[in-house]
Amino acid sequence: MDNKLYIGSVYYPEHWPRERWPHDIQLMKEAGVNVLRLGELAWSKLEPTDGQFDFSMYDDFIELVAEIGVKIVLGTPIEGSPVWLRHKFPDVVAKNKFRILHAERGHHCHNNKDFAFHVSRITTKMAEHYANHPAVIGWQLDNEMRAVPCYCNVCEDGFRDWLQDRYGTLDQLNESWGTVFWSQVYNTWDEVKLPAADQLTITVSQQLDFNRFQSDSTVHHMNRMVDIVKKHGPHQFTTHNSLGLYLMLDLNKLGEKLDYMGVDFYPHVDSDNIDTVLSQDLHRGTKRKNFWVMEQKNGYFNYSDYNLAIEPGLVRLWALQDIARGANAVLFYRWRSGRYSWEQNPNGILRHDGTPRRAYYEIQQLTGELEAISSQLAETEVEAPVAILHSYEIAWAFEAHKQYTNFSYRGHIISYYKALLRMGVTVDLVDPSVDLSRYKFVIAPSLLMVNDDIHQNLMRYVENGGQLIIGARSGMKNWENVTIDTPWPGLLSEMAGIEIDEFEVLPDKYTNTVSYEGKEYSVKVWLDMLRLTTAESMAVYKEKFYAGRTAISRNKYGKGVVYYVGVMGSEELFRDLITHVADETGLSYTSLPDGIFVSSRVKDNDRYTFYVNINKEPTMVKLLENGNHAVSGNSLSGEVLIKGLDVLIVHS
Amino acid sequence: MDNKLYIGSVYYPEHWPRERWPHDIQLMKEAGVNVLRLGELAWSKLEPTDGQFDFSMYDDFIELVAEIGVKIVLGTPIEGSPVWLRHKFPDVVAKNKFRILHAERGHHCHNNKDFAFHVSRITTKMAEHYANHPAVIGWQLDNEMRAVPCYCNVCEDGFRDWLQDRYGTLDQLNESWGTVFWSQVYNTWDEVKLPAADQLTITVSQQLDFNRFQSDSTVHHMNRMVDIVKKHGPHQFTTHNSLGLYLMLDLNKLGEKLDYMGVDFYPHVDSDNIDTVLSQDLHRGTKRKNFWVMEQKNGYFNYSDYNLAIEPGLVRLWALQDIARGANAVLFYRWRSGRYSWEQNPNGILRHDGTPRRAYYEIQQLTGELEAISSQLAETEVEAPVAILHSYEIAWAFEAHKQYTNFSYRGHIISYYKALLRMGVTVDLVDPSVDLSRYKFVIAPSLLMVNDDIHQNLMRYVENGGQLIIGARSGMKNWENVTIDTPWPGLLSEMAGIEIDEFEVLPDKYTNTVSYEGKEYSVKVWLDMLRLTTAESMAVYKEKFYAGRTAISRNKYGKGVVYYVGVMGSEELFRDLITHVADETGLSYTSLPDGIFVSSRVKDNDRYTFYVNINKEPTMVKLLENGNHAVSGNSLSGEVLIKGLDVLIVHS
Amino acid sequence: MDNKLYIGSVYYPEHWPRERWPHDIQLMKEAGVNVLRLGELAWSKLEPTDGQFDFSMYDDFIELVAEIGVKIVLGTPIEGSPVWLRHKFPDVVAKNKFRILHAERGHHCHNNKDFAFHVSRITTKMAEHYANHPAVIGWQLDNEMRAVPCYCNVCEDGFRDWLQDRYGTLDQLNESWGTVFWSQVYNTWDEVKLPAADQLTITVSQQLDFNRFQSDSTVHHMNRMVDIVKKHGPHQFTTHNSLGLYLMLDLNKLGEKLDYMGVDFYPHVDSDNIDTVLSQDLHRGTKRKNFWVMEQKNGYFNYSDYNLAIEPGLVRLWALQDIARGANAVLFYRWRSGRYSWEQNPNGILRHDGTPRRAYYEIQQLTGELEAISSQLAETEVEAPVAILHSYEIAWAFEAHKQYTNFSYRGHIISYYKALLRMGVTVDLVDPSVDLSRYKFVIAPSLLMVNDDIHQNLMRYVENGGQLIIGARSGMKNWENVTIDTPWPGLLSEMAGIEIDEFEVLPDKYTNTVSYEGKEYSVKVWLDMLRLTTAESMAVYKEKFYAGRTAISRNKYGKGVVYYVGVMGSEELFRDLITHVADETGLSYTSLPDGIFVSSRVKDNDRYTFYVNINKEPTMVKLLENGNHAVSGNSLSGEVLIKGLDVLIVHS
Repeated sequence: MDNKLYIGSVYYPEHWPRERWPHDIQLMKEAGVNVLRLGELAWSKLEPTDGQFDFSMYDDFIELVAEIGVKIVLGTPIEGSPVWLRHKFPDVVAKNKFRILHAERGHHCHNNKDFAFHVSRITTKMAEHYANHPAVIGWQLDNEMRAVPCYCNVCEDGFRDWLQDRYGTLDQLNESWGTVFWSQVYNTWDEVKLPAADQLTITVSQQLDFNRFQSDSTVHHMNRMVDIVKKHGPHQFTTHNSLGLYLMLDLNKLGEKLDYMGVDFYPHVDSDNIDTVLSQDLHRGTKRKNFWVMEQKNGYFNYSDYNLAIEPGLVRLWALQDIARGANAVLFYRWRSGRYSWEQNPNGILRHDGTPRRAYYEIQQLTGELEAISSQLAETEVEAPVAILHSYEIAWAFEAHKQYTNFSYRGHIISYYKALLRMGVTVDLVDPSVDLSRYKFVIAPSLLMVNDDIHQNLMRYVENGGQLIIGARSGMKNWENVTIDTPWPGLLSEMAGIEIDEFEVLPDKYTNTVSYEGKEYSVKVWLDMLRLTTAESMAVYKEKFYAGRTAISRNKYGKGVVYYVGVMGSEELFRDLITHVADETGLSYTSLPDGIFVSSRVKDNDRYTFYVNINKEPTMVKLLENGNHAVSGNSLSGEVLIKGLDVLIVHS
Repeated sequence: MDNKLYIGSVYYPEHWPRERWPHDIQLMKEAGVNVLRLGELAWSKLEPTDGQFDFSMYDDFIELVAEIGVKIVLGTPIEGSPVWLRHKFPDVVAKNKFRILHAERGHHCHNNKDFAFHVSRITTKMAEHYANHPAVIGWQLDNEMRAVPCYCNVCEDGFRDWLQDRYGTLDQLNESWGTVFWSQVYNTWDEVKLPAADQLTITVSQQLDFNRFQSDSTVHHMNRMVDIVKKHGPHQFTTHNSLGLYLMLDLNKLGEKLDYMGVDFYPHVDSDNIDTVLSQDLHRGTKRKNFWVMEQKNGYFNYSDYNLAIEPGLVRLWALQDIARGANAVLFYRWRSGRYSWEQNPNGILRHDGTPRRAYYEIQQLTGELEAISSQLAETEVEAPVAILHSYEIAWAFEAHKQYTNFSYRGHIISYYKALLRMGVTVDLVDPSVDLSRYKFVIAPSLLMVNDDIHQNLMRYVENGGQLIIGARSGMKNWENVTIDTPWPGLLSEMAGIEIDEFEVLPDKYTNTVSYEGKEYSVKVWLDMLRLTTAESMAVYKEKFYAGRTAISRNKYGKGVVYYVGVMGSEELFRDLITHVADETGLSYTSLPDGIFVSSRVKDNDRYTFYVNINKEPTMVKLLENGNHAVSGNSLSGEVLIKGLDVLIVHS
Repeated sequence: MDNKLYIGSVYYPEHWPRERWPHDIQLMKEAGVNVLRLGELAWSKLEPTDGQFDFSMYDDFIELVAEIGVKIVLGTPIEGSPVWLRHKFPDVVAKNKFRILHAERGHHCHNNKDFAFHVSRITTKMAEHYANHPAVIGWQLDNEMRAVPCYCNVCEDGFRDWLQDRYGTLDQLNESWGTVFWSQVYNTWDEVKLPAADQLTITVSQQLDFNRFQSDSTVHHMNRMVDIVKKHGPHQFTTHNSLGLYLMLDLNKLGEKLDYMGVDFYPHVDSDNIDTVLSQDLHRGTKRKNFWVMEQKNGYFNYSDYNLAIEPGLVRLWALQDIARGANAVLFYRWRSGRYSWEQNPNGILRHDGTPRRAYYEIQQLTGELEAISSQLAETEVEAPVAILHSYEIAWAFEAHKQYTNFSYRGHIISYYKALLRMGVTVDLVDPSVDLSRYKFVIAPSLLMVNDDIHQNLMRYVENGGQLIIGARSGMKNWENVTIDTPWPGLLSEMAGIEIDEFEVLPDKYTNTVSYEGKEYSVKVWLDMLRLTTAESMAVYKEKFYAGRTAISRNKYGKGVVYYVGVMGSEELFRDLITHVADETGLSYTSLPDGIFVSSRVKDNDRYTFYVNINKEPTMVKLLENGNHAVSGNSLSGEVLIKGLDVLIVHS
């Protein structure tokens, strides 16, 4: 695989007449496209009937594009399983809570044996056929997977096996789930069922484990494919195009066997860009490594209740925003606009009539600009001096027991995240179990559940001098979604130097006020009342019967410091607090104008700082470091004006 | 059948003691009632057990009413199938998406063989019995039919047959539906299924065809009955009482074999009258012929979450509004208020205790007023110089692929329709395939799909001098709900003299502005950006990056003119544009006060112009033509004051 | 059973280590706890496998608590049936409308034979074992029961039997339900089905009878248990903890065999207290007797989308509010906060870590305050001089035919109820069939259905001098949810001296105005237009075409008076009217400040008047009678200041 940025698209040879191919390939060449994804929805073309394979169309097409130097990422065509497969094996489709087949696109049962057989067979056939093709550099396994819950008998047996692996004995399962509650003790393993609609009661621990099982089943399905393609083509990379901020599939586990994280981006034209950069920081954080953007929106979206015209400049901006936070490849979805069924809007670089849309010319401009710096950039890594802890299992614990409609796990994370964005500080979103030593400080917005590994990991980090901010609703539960029987925040109490006596959860109509460093902040949603053991009080409540009680504490521990922030809902408070921590830890930061997103890619002494302006108006920005315009080479310093919907790359 | 207007009601002899009948009939006589509908919910009375028929109660009742000259329209009693039928044949009930029986009133499977057998048998028995009864002038087949989707095996087989008829080969089906999309190619016919919940993916073309199949199945069910009653009583007319603005059943196909369109009206007391007159113009437009109102609300409604007391005058107004736009018969629902189950509100002309409500006296007044002009009026036809194109299949295409929640096909049609109402111009709502030569101009608010027939029909109209207004979101798809691969608006491009480069679909929070003839208009929902080929620009956008681009164009074509209106959401703009077209085509119009609805019924030199005032306050109206008060004979000219909730009929 | 107030809690010995028990019991002793509920969720502990019983843990625990004099109420552990039971007999779970198993906590089929067998067996075993235990004073049968609709075959057969009992013949059933409507006549009993999803049409009479059947099935299930425990322990009392304002189970029938009504209270911290006192007046009214509060919230709630911190004083206030309106026992739920599944919030008197929450100390204060007056108070009864008629069957009739979304049966009752609360008058909510002679006057907010018994009962009351206020939407239907065929309000017409000609039901955007005694009131929702026969007009409408027609009438009848109030929605109008009636009947009343709730418990010459202040601020109240502070003995007279969230008990 060449050392350069990949800019490309997605093509469906089976959708268009062969006579058209050369014209499309000529247009790709002129646009500077150097990679295509193919095949991820072509099962019925590649295996038209059970066991008969025909790769000739793809061979022909790949030969043509290879001639102009375009590389290929092949998709395994699992999501759109062929009609003949489901006609023969209806149970490859997932069953709903009522144990009735209920399908949507991609709703396969990942534990079904017939499904596994056919997935493995076509993956093997494709891997055998394309492992040594010089143009095929990698594989995307399946497409935008979800951890679809399936309530079939195979999944029920599989779940029981999974639980036996996890808990060993039924006594341990009973104790871990607290089945004594509501008298739901299991006497035999065959009494253990899926949380289907026919179950009189479903514990929140069972639901959490079912989510784990679903996610594991999906990861297992993917790893089956990874093993096959790696066996035949160990030099070819593997990736998957994740749904981005989708919560139900654990990206950390999904990423383990993959060479690169991959992700799709479909931002709204009027988006505030937060979800985009959050997803980038999450996918980069997963392997702490650059990633691939397998689908980048460039035109109209097909799944939205509105569709703004794409402002000039936005297609180029989206791609550069991807690169700014770690993308080493951006594939625009799709080459030519589709005509059929659910995707008929002009989502292609070409219109459905085959003529270029404005996007085409922006992509051409982009590839031109990147040409000189592409290989240098490809070797850089994003500078992220701070980590935010993000756990899928905690997210599922909240999902399994949705109590408070105005609390959102992701929303709470974002309120810390935004504070750092405005300071120009890039963060990794990482699992609480990863080595944190590289980070200046770490924020754990809501560690609802804590296990020994996480506890030890955080202790190690703080004892060695790390600074840790723990947010509200932390340390309350063990890893089975069960409340501990010691004072909150449990395992975190000692390092935080506090205990929590009481709390309240406010509906939207109520707030309280917190006083911190002489300034008052409105707080809401969840308020913990802290009792200090070894910590000092940093902020107190101002209202209601608990006025004067501590809301935020600070505790020196080992060589480090632990903050406990017992409140939610004030980005301003979080920014002021984080500023304090940044000052203590010597992290440099700035104060960015609205609509400006900054991040740096660095290698050795080379630094490329991206200033992305999502405002339609020109915006004045003070550079973090002086340097040269990465494309023109002009020298830049101090304050510069960035045009609306433009991106400035400063090389220093 | 006599040449007069029919004013009547609906009676259920089986609901009341026989001893009561003479009193009811005496009251009918005094009210001037001359027609009754009977039997449409009497199956279990007429065939109490399987195969045993007993028409004696109906014979006795009909004999009594025939004595006072009242005519009978008999309903076939299908909607309320008897319990014994469903107990014996549970599958006469429709199955839901999960292929589980899920019933509501009237949810029969129209393809079930047992259902067809029993429907045909009771229809035959009734037709044999009543074909030659002098009082029975016609038949209402079934009641307020819906094209209920049924997902049973019989429907699945039926759908497959229907598709074979339509497409011939599986290759053609695959190509027409674009099954290459998401790899859903069919290899054998038995792989083709209904769009049920167990299907992994359902294309929007499949869904459209399923809607067509449902509608055709329902029409087929009705035509079976039409053939039977016409065989025995060719002199008796046939009709059906449609649900009015119900979308899922194609009234054009339903109307083909019927002698008259029939429809039910249940306006709210505080209605703005638009849905009522739209439904009248649609039902009249279907056969371009006068129609029957089989049920006209006269009292409290049973299916509403509120129930205003009926203002004095409103019952008479509703009936005259029916007649004003083409009703030759108005049957008030129902004679005496029902006591049972879902219909216990006082919906009758009599209370549930058998005493007259105020409505009784208004009906008495109405029959008195109409007496002298009834036979003359019955021969007139409504003057409708303009057509609006309205297609059920296009409506289903939008339903099959609901993308934009703030777009409504009917709502968009209404925005043009209202402009014409305020100008005092009556329109026919007609299918795009009908001969348009009679119309001064034609409006096609959204021809999403176009086929060759429609294209030729419109070409013919314009080439011969017609003026055609084409609205936004037109010409994008072929007749299978698939986007074309040539520039939009496809087959309409040449006559419109434009191509569409881009568009946007705004959420409710955004608008743009259009400048037309020096005036500015706020537009929303859907905005097309036009590129002129032979057309001239009439209006341009004022905002965003596409300011200056054409929003409305005008193209001379043949002897006619084609306008393309690329915007939605401004009735004011539409009125100003239509005024321009009216001036060009020499159509006379006026400007009506709010709450006044005007239409004319004409024959030769006789013209009856109806001025309906839905305001509670007296309203001054400038007459379109001077003439005489149709009832009193007084001469009327210039401006006249119409009382609140009153109707003025001017004969000229 | 001792003659005293019981203050206690709920304990789960199976949730905590035995070693912890002595510490908990010591804490109970110090808090003054004198009663515990045990066992209601312990089936899998008491019968770990089918037919093997083990009461040893409970024996041990009860022995320990008995030592400190704490009494026990044992729950039969039905709600949380064990997993082994459902694994062996899946059909003990209820089936949903589609006849598919669909469970939630407690969703058992009350007619299933296997369920009945196992319920009876464990109840028998427990009763045998504990009937003669001196500490066990009573039984709570099952837990927070709902009348879960089940659509299984056993219920279908049971419903058919129930209907045969009720109607005798199928002809009578057909006539009573009005099956002639929509042609749904039954020919054989096996055609009669449950109102499941596979039924083409379901009458509102069938639905009402199905609700009756569900409720009866649930009562039957409970009475089975009552009979068993009473056979073995006739000296032990029986109760059930009702869901409070739950509508679908007829508390009057449920209460027949019980010794005491029991109820659970989970008020919101920011509640306006209305639902609480209404539920108290309803449960006391059911048997016109003091009742038990089996669960009183004392901490965080587990089923709410927010959770305010409990204000200091509120736990004590809630308990005293219970006692103020008739509770002779208050059990705080639960002793120690739960750790598992759906109930992990700190809902215990102790935290999950075993330390006392603030609630502990308030309960300690409460038991101390009550000590001296406990036995006296236990013998008093609540003074309720007025009755409001409340019928579950009428509520179901409205549910079976939900027409008007802005009408609520309970909401309408509350608008009368609030007027009386503000006047300081305590009411019994009673079934329309109970002897009313004890009441100064009676309000029937909406007697939608009337039968002969109720008619006679009301006649008797009025003829003997009672004053009766009948609200709108009354007398329209017979007891089968079928509209009568005589003028409204039917059987009530003669005593009310009116007939109703017309009515209207307004959506929220409309109101009308009524003039009463020179003052104008805005009315809404439902407006009856009265025609006077023997009554006089008290109030008339001011707007619309029916301005001047009577809205409220007054009719002398026998020695009494009947008012018909044809309007809804004005508490102010109701208060002024009730004030008039109170004056006529010589009932004394006051005018309470907002947030103050008054009620009296009396015996002979002893009167304890409770003044509950739900305001957070101190509030000045004029005493109804002078007397002494019931705890301190200080004399009190005239106006006194009650602290925020405090309760004053005046003994006089």
